[in-house]
Amino acid sequence: MSTQAGRGGSESTQRGPVVTGVDITPVAIADPPLLNASGVHEPFQLRSIIQVRTDAGITGVSEAYGDDATLAQLRQAAATLPGLDVFHLNDLTRRVSGALASASASSPTELIGAASADKTVAQAVSAFEVACFDIQGKATGKPVVDLLGGAVRDRVDFSAYLFYKWAEHPGDYPADDWGAALDPDGIVAQARRMVELYGFGSLKLKGGVFAPEEEVAAVKALRAAFPDRPVRLDPNANWSVETSHRVAAALEGELEYLEDPTAGIPGMAEVAAKTSLPLATNMCVTGFAEIPEAVRLGAVQVILSDHHFWGGFRATQALAGLCETFGLGLSMHSNTHLGISLAAMTHLAAATPNLTYALDTHSPWKTEEVIAGGPLRFVGGALTVPEGPGLGVAVDEDALARLHEQYLTCGFRKRDDATWMRRVQPEFTGRRPRF
Amino acid sequence: MSTQAGRGGSESTQRGPVVTGVDITPVAIADPPLLNASGVHEPFQLRSIIQVRTDAGITGVSEAYGDDATLAQLRQAAATLPGLDVFHLNDLTRRVSGALASASASSPTELIGAASADKTVAQAVSAFEVACFDIQGKATGKPVVDLLGGAVRDRVDFSAYLFYKWAEHPGDYPADDWGAALDPDGIVAQARRMVELYGFGSLKLKGGVFAPEEEVAAVKALRAAFPDRPVRLDPNANWSVETSHRVAAALEGELEYLEDPTAGIPGMAEVAAKTSLPLATNMCVTGFAEIPEAVRLGAVQVILSDHHFWGGFRATQALAGLCETFGLGLSMHSNTHLGISLAAMTHLAAATPNLTYALDTHSPWKTEEVIAGGPLRFVGGALTVPEGPGLGVAVDEDALARLHEQYLTCGFRKRDDATWMRRVQPEFTGRRPRF
Repeated sequence: MSTQAGRGGSESTQRGPVVTGVDITPVAIADPPLLNASGVHEPFQLRSIIQVRTDAGITGVSEAYGDDATLAQLRQAAATLPGLDVFHLNDLTRRVSGALASASASSPTELIGAASADKTVAQAVSAFEVACFDIQGKATGKPVVDLLGGAVRDRVDFSAYLFYKWAEHPGDYPADDWGAALDPDGIVAQARRMVELYGFGSLKLKGGVFAPEEEVAAVKALRAAFPDRPVRLDPNANWSVETSHRVAAALEGELEYLEDPTAGIPGMAEVAAKTSLPLATNMCVTGFAEIPEAVRLGAVQVILSDHHFWGGFRATQALAGLCETFGLGLSMHSNTHLGISLAAMTHLAAATPNLTYALDTHSPWKTEEVIAGGPLRFVGGALTVPEGPGLGVAVDEDALARLHEQYLTCGFRKRDDATWMRRVQPEFTGRRPRF
Repeated sequence: MSTQAGRGGSESTQRGPVVTGVDITPVAIADPPLLNASGVHEPFQLRSIIQVRTDAGITGVSEAYGDDATLAQLRQAAATLPGLDVFHLNDLTRRVSGALASASASSPTELIGAASADKTVAQAVSAFEVACFDIQGKATGKPVVDLLGGAVRDRVDFSAYLFYKWAEHPGDYPADDWGAALDPDGIVAQARRMVELYGFGSLKLKGGVFAPEEEVAAVKALRAAFPDRPVRLDPNANWSVETSHRVAAALEGELEYLEDPTAGIPGMAEVAAKTSLPLATNMCVTGFAEIPEAVRLGAVQVILSDHHFWGGFRATQALAGLCETFGLGLSMHSNTHLGISLAAMTHLAAATPNLTYALDTHSPWKTEEVIAGGPLRFVGGALTVPEGPGLGVAVDEDALARLHEQYLTCGFRKRDDATWMRRVQPEFTGRRPRF
């Protein structure tokens, strides 16, 4: 019994909505053969669609990774959620941490850095926290952006995510309509089409695929073709420190930022010491525990947030505060995703004042969607925050069933770009740094 | 017009509540002659009671500093708030920053560190942000603690705030019922009474008043009388680095933490380098801009949060994230305050997982109250979160009128402990370090 009852007047507080159950549905979405440091994207990427049911009849949605290890962890955590008040996000963290106390560290892809127990918990918390915010918004009639402090911008800018790619996957998979891009001309052509279709105002090239000189040439070709658009390059730590020095010198003044040229905080610090290019990361700093060393060594100048692995909206806001305090830039990372994640990213970005870089998104590479009404529409390279309470998007149950069926039949259960690469290049090891 | 309309179903979002006006009422509350490094508390402390009115008929309350400079800033900022959606806290910051862009840096007391333009904005944001949260809570039927992530503890522990003091103020002011405390016996007697009345489980001595050896003796007397209760000592930077080394050596193992022994981050770092006592601060790190240097030098091990000057609830949560990330402890600071601030502190503390130290409060020294139902009741040294939506406390309008009348007649307009001290000790300069 409280000792402070009844002071605020006659109104009483309302508990909940309270979680009654959670559905976790893995889905597979078709994906083109996009090349990167680890190999090549497989024909399907895995995601999971989270639906959190409550006693108020409100269901909240979220989207997370869909590999076997993540699914097992999400299910283990979900079992502890019935009874959770969706406003009690600290309790959510407590429940998930407890459920996963003995879970082994795992990561859906090596491209988001080293796995850790903290990050395993953060990923699961995020999956459910986003759904809880969706429910909070629906229960209060507020868009999620308002529950995060309100929008600081009307439009959230995204960047064109350019990839070296093959024309088609090995084996019996339909070709995509982007064609091959294996040299500077191919990348510029891809950029032209992507800018034409979506209006992106900045460009990001996934590198770490070919010899660095070829990728430098591609960047310079992009700069020449799009002189007004900032360009980023991300070789996913596929370069040695020495190679990174060489490439950074060749690209001085050409890049908005250079993303993860080399592996590890000490290596990044060595690179940073000799270049004026800002270094960005979503590989060596992907959890709070990694921030102090990065700050101490001056290893990075921009951190790519990602609510999926930083621990949700609130954790990403904490990261934003850290970046602001230590004078670090803040951008946003993307893995292949569907419209629920895109909506979540947009709400979060709209409410984050120092998220001033255009966000990454894999959206243009996606030909399937799980939300009702089809994909969110980019205008001038930007999204507006979806209208309506919560995230403002709803699951298309038929599409969900179709993508789940695709999951069941596709045969992929964990992302493994190196193995898929070996279908074409049997000698490929995936060892980094390759250059 | 949004490009993403109508995806979330048929429900529409609700704007607001929207601010229609703000009342800022300065009050004066009687205060005993509590000694500190700056001099002695005057017979009245100034606060302001903020009442934010909305188009929904809901009024939110908050409590802030009440000195002339703060009042002018709050009024200047308040004039920009009509039209503000109380969920749009980023917009609140934008409005307040704009209103105070040319305000000169000011601080209600030197005991919370150096003034800065950022801190001036933070103080004003906090004053209104707390009221906005109160309105959010009342509009949604939620206690503020639930809007901050939900309670992680049922009871919020506070510490006994012990002061050297005179028996009465100079001049024609009624004596308080605590009597003088000018030596170890007096402090122990004061602690006994305060523990008996409120049940506090930890003790804090405001030092910097007498020769350090006398204060060491007082701490040791407290430790002997209360062997189970952690003790803190806070000389408010009234010691040189050398004196701090000497006192720290004398109190090794005796203190939960030593608070602001000396001035400035470099000085604190020198002290920290030679003691195993954790150093705490609410003087050299009182804004985000001061954190990087403090971290780099290892100057402090505990930061005392205070939503009043860090910028509100959300800013304090960002501070909590910073402390967690950098392995710093988190405690909470107090100035003389009324029940609205105490309720706000309790909601915030209940929702902040790493706020593991007992909070400071001046509550026992206060004989007047502005909230309906009288002061919140400590049980076992702790408070439960007030029940009811929002902060769970309501202004007693008669009490507010009485305390405002007291403000009008008391003659004090800015805290100045040194001038009051000189009524008794004309030679007192207030210069620090005195020891």
